[in-house]
Amino acid sequence: MSGALRVLPLGGLGEIGKNMTVVEYDDRIVVVDTGLMFPAPDQLGIDLVLPDFTYLRERAEDIEAIVLTHGHEDHVGALPFVLREIGPRATPPIYGGPLTVAMVRSKLDEHRLRDVPLEELAPGDQVDAGPFGLELVKMAHSIPDSCGVALTCELGTALVTGDYKFDQTPVDGVPADVSRLAELGREGLLVLCGDSTNVDRPGIAVSESSVGPHLEEVFGRCEGRIVVTSFASNIHRVQQVVDAAGALGRKVALVGRSMRKNVNIGRQLGHIDIPEGILVGVREIEDFPDHKLVAISTGSQGEPLSALRRMAHGDHPQLELREGDTVIFSATPIPGNERAVNETIDRIYQLGANVITARDAPIHASGHGYAEELKLMINLTSPRYVFPFHGDHRRLRLHGQLAEAVGIDPEAVFRGENGLPLEIDGHGARFVEPEQAGMIFVDGVDFGDIEDVALRDRRTLSADGIFIVVATVSGQDGSSVAQPEIIFRGVPFLETEDGFVEEIRGAVEESLDRSARDDISEISLLQDHLHDDVAKFVYDRLKRRPLVLPVVVEV
Amino acid sequence: MSGALRVLPLGGLGEIGKNMTVVEYDDRIVVVDTGLMFPAPDQLGIDLVLPDFTYLRERAEDIEAIVLTHGHEDHVGALPFVLREIGPRATPPIYGGPLTVAMVRSKLDEHRLRDVPLEELAPGDQVDAGPFGLELVKMAHSIPDSCGVALTCELGTALVTGDYKFDQTPVDGVPADVSRLAELGREGLLVLCGDSTNVDRPGIAVSESSVGPHLEEVFGRCEGRIVVTSFASNIHRVQQVVDAAGALGRKVALVGRSMRKNVNIGRQLGHIDIPEGILVGVREIEDFPDHKLVAISTGSQGEPLSALRRMAHGDHPQLELREGDTVIFSATPIPGNERAVNETIDRIYQLGANVITARDAPIHASGHGYAEELKLMINLTSPRYVFPFHGDHRRLRLHGQLAEAVGIDPEAVFRGENGLPLEIDGHGARFVEPEQAGMIFVDGVDFGDIEDVALRDRRTLSADGIFIVVATVSGQDGSSVAQPEIIFRGVPFLETEDGFVEEIRGAVEESLDRSARDDISEISLLQDHLHDDVAKFVYDRLKRRPLVLPVVVEV
Repeated sequence: MSGALRVLPLGGLGEIGKNMTVVEYDDRIVVVDTGLMFPAPDQLGIDLVLPDFTYLRERAEDIEAIVLTHGHEDHVGALPFVLREIGPRATPPIYGGPLTVAMVRSKLDEHRLRDVPLEELAPGDQVDAGPFGLELVKMAHSIPDSCGVALTCELGTALVTGDYKFDQTPVDGVPADVSRLAELGREGLLVLCGDSTNVDRPGIAVSESSVGPHLEEVFGRCEGRIVVTSFASNIHRVQQVVDAAGALGRKVALVGRSMRKNVNIGRQLGHIDIPEGILVGVREIEDFPDHKLVAISTGSQGEPLSALRRMAHGDHPQLELREGDTVIFSATPIPGNERAVNETIDRIYQLGANVITARDAPIHASGHGYAEELKLMINLTSPRYVFPFHGDHRRLRLHGQLAEAVGIDPEAVFRGENGLPLEIDGHGARFVEPEQAGMIFVDGVDFGDIEDVALRDRRTLSADGIFIVVATVSGQDGSSVAQPEIIFRGVPFLETEDGFVEEIRGAVEESLDRSARDDISEISLLQDHLHDDVAKFVYDRLKRRPLVLPVVVEV
Repeated sequence: MSGALRVLPLGGLGEIGKNMTVVEYDDRIVVVDTGLMFPAPDQLGIDLVLPDFTYLRERAEDIEAIVLTHGHEDHVGALPFVLREIGPRATPPIYGGPLTVAMVRSKLDEHRLRDVPLEELAPGDQVDAGPFGLELVKMAHSIPDSCGVALTCELGTALVTGDYKFDQTPVDGVPADVSRLAELGREGLLVLCGDSTNVDRPGIAVSESSVGPHLEEVFGRCEGRIVVTSFASNIHRVQQVVDAAGALGRKVALVGRSMRKNVNIGRQLGHIDIPEGILVGVREIEDFPDHKLVAISTGSQGEPLSALRRMAHGDHPQLELREGDTVIFSATPIPGNERAVNETIDRIYQLGANVITARDAPIHASGHGYAEELKLMINLTSPRYVFPFHGDHRRLRLHGQLAEAVGIDPEAVFRGENGLPLEIDGHGARFVEPEQAGMIFVDGVDFGDIEDVALRDRRTLSADGIFIVVATVSGQDGSSVAQPEIIFRGVPFLETEDGFVEEIRGAVEESLDRSARDDISEISLLQDHLHDDVAKFVYDRLKRRPLVLPVVVEV
């Protein structure tokens, strides 16, 4: 493989979330981002979904560095799991911007992973990572300290953009480093791995700093209390909410654990400036008149245990929503969360409060560049090869078409998928043999590939419930020596039908008698027969297929 | 109650779906619509959701008529269940337009309900229904033969609009009967119960007939096969797809059972006109060149077993999607279906086919009027009272605000909820004591109120799985006489941990020993202790709370 650059996405292609990429040269590896995603509704009981990183486990010794583009969960959330698997001995330096490092450190602390070699890297500074020169390039996004990653080896430079927009008036005054991108382009970028999230939106994303004045305008029309919900990590948004509240003489309460945590980190790093005396505690909310208060809350995605969801269900200990209150969604639903968000909104209306969303006023700005920004990125960096990242199949396709529209040779556009390595050498670029990739699930404290058995069982259990039949048979002749126990859970409408349980008992006795007549005494065979007989009986009577679990106890 | 008109919504308020309304005068009842809704993701294993119609069951003898505004499931789908409950003896005449009656008859046949007194009623014709004069008023909507219902008693007239828009150029050339609405207004409408679905959209909905030319234009740009997906009941849309196909010399294949069924019914009633020779069978699809074919398919909402979803999963027996094909969504996702629709679209992209949605071209028209149409309805009918229907809490609120904006006295606007009767008499209108209302679930073949036990169990089972512990004890002294059996389902990561099962066995033996020492021999008490001990052990070890089911067998 020497002499070839390999770019292997382990997550984020053909999906939205769990971004993770392996960049390889001379058998040495740099990992860009270690993200997770949240489970779909049919992934029952699953807490988190991670990329399958078997490849990293097997190549642990070859990893020169892990570099994180920014602090969002879909770019850093899998790091504790990755570090646990590759072990402290093989853990390479982990680079990121100051906020990224601070947020990740706090997360690793929760996982009791200490002494991890986290290193702040300033944009523009180069460090060596094996055969690569590694450099962060400043980008704008919905969290401070977002960067792209330029990895330079003998063959040329790969740029993984991370999430980005070209915001000309970002809240912190430091726009994306267009001039460094142009410089990379002049030197001749080898491959561009770019964010596809908003490729389907024409034009350019509105600037983050345009949100503030609109928030202030909306606040000005509210007579009662105001609750603003947004992503806790969007520290510049929180800044703008605080500024708008201050301008109107309102106090600010931070509601929700991650909101308080992120604001604290942001303050320590100087990303957010909250004037003295404006913050009030959640318990003091009732001490201020309604028109003197703004609460900033988690829960913009309708998350089940979030502060806003609890308010919507009349279940928040300090903040009870009522007529006169206005809840402002300064965020839009991530695809897949529409139902949860709409339910939350409607609950708030039911309580009598008013709701204002980004459909009613321009109070949200996306952190991902629109089509014209993606074109600008391609034109700035003049890549030899374009490899669209971060998007479902539709967006990857559209990003490819867009690259062709700005003049990239269609042969130089690669529509990939997770696990499919793009190999680039002096002769060109091509996809090569796929590596292992996919989903692994975190459930409670464990994680791994549980798809096959446990999830299938859970689906059956959740759809039709379970029947358990306990038969006690004699070890001598296999005859039934106690009344069969019939237990069911999640099977509706049976509570009132005692007769049915009696009938099943009859079916069990009959099945056991038949087995005894046929001289079947092996327990597992008895159970098989019992299963088939009871399942058939239940289906004939209920037209349902609950999980039937026969237990034969021999005494 | 004599002398008072009561309007009691049993479904459709504070939600989207399962519309059902009881209108009552002099203790006699007319039921307007008997709709259902489809379950939310957390209603595990549920097939359908119906309004709780206990009220109708108890008052079965008082029902003078059931009247159906149109043939959509959220307005007629619960009828078989209602009829089964009130019984053939009490079944009143059931009125609707010709297509509504034909579709309902076909549905009742499937439920083996025959000899039901279904009666076609032409708009404008009045029939007596106890103290009411009952009349259908022609409306426009996304299915032919849609009507509002005017119910006139001594006190005045109630108008239940059903779903409507004011389409000035409907495909069948028969617009909503504005003049009859105006006449009702001149006579003085007592109460208007109006559709709120699109109250949040400004302006007026585009005409259904505007869709056809755009479809033809989009078809003209497609070089390969075309698959159009839409609601099977939107017969005018199907007509326009057929016309566009015909204009471009393409054949048409109908894919999906309900598509074929509805087109058949529509043809019999003259609602759709398909020229000779244009229809081809699904099995003949491969006999025609790609550019000569349009398939019209079910599945526009990403429904799990629909034809399009099967195509997207490469699992349709006759139609395999491939590069060059174009799938056109001539429909938008109903709120809550966004995820299923987006998944379907992305799967289609993954197969290499192209997708065009209503975001890309104006190839869909909503069947529900926008804000200006709702205002027009209020102005036309000049109601004394406005009672917004068909919408979640947000839409009901907005509809009320809109009524006030066109000059209705805020005191005359009623924001209701399911089960809350609005009573109107000579002195005014007011909400009175609530009646029973809510959801009942259809699961397999049964239906009823299963919320409490079975659904809660299913949620636990789906989230954490189940542990079953079978202990066999002596009837004499309660001592364990066989090795405890430990069975689990839906609990991941244990397959490889045999030791854990051994440890649980230990915990079981210990629990039984303790009970024996404490002279506990009553089975139910033994089971309680066993449950608590095992649940604690499992939680301590796994940090999960599966359903723990102890079974003690006495021999």
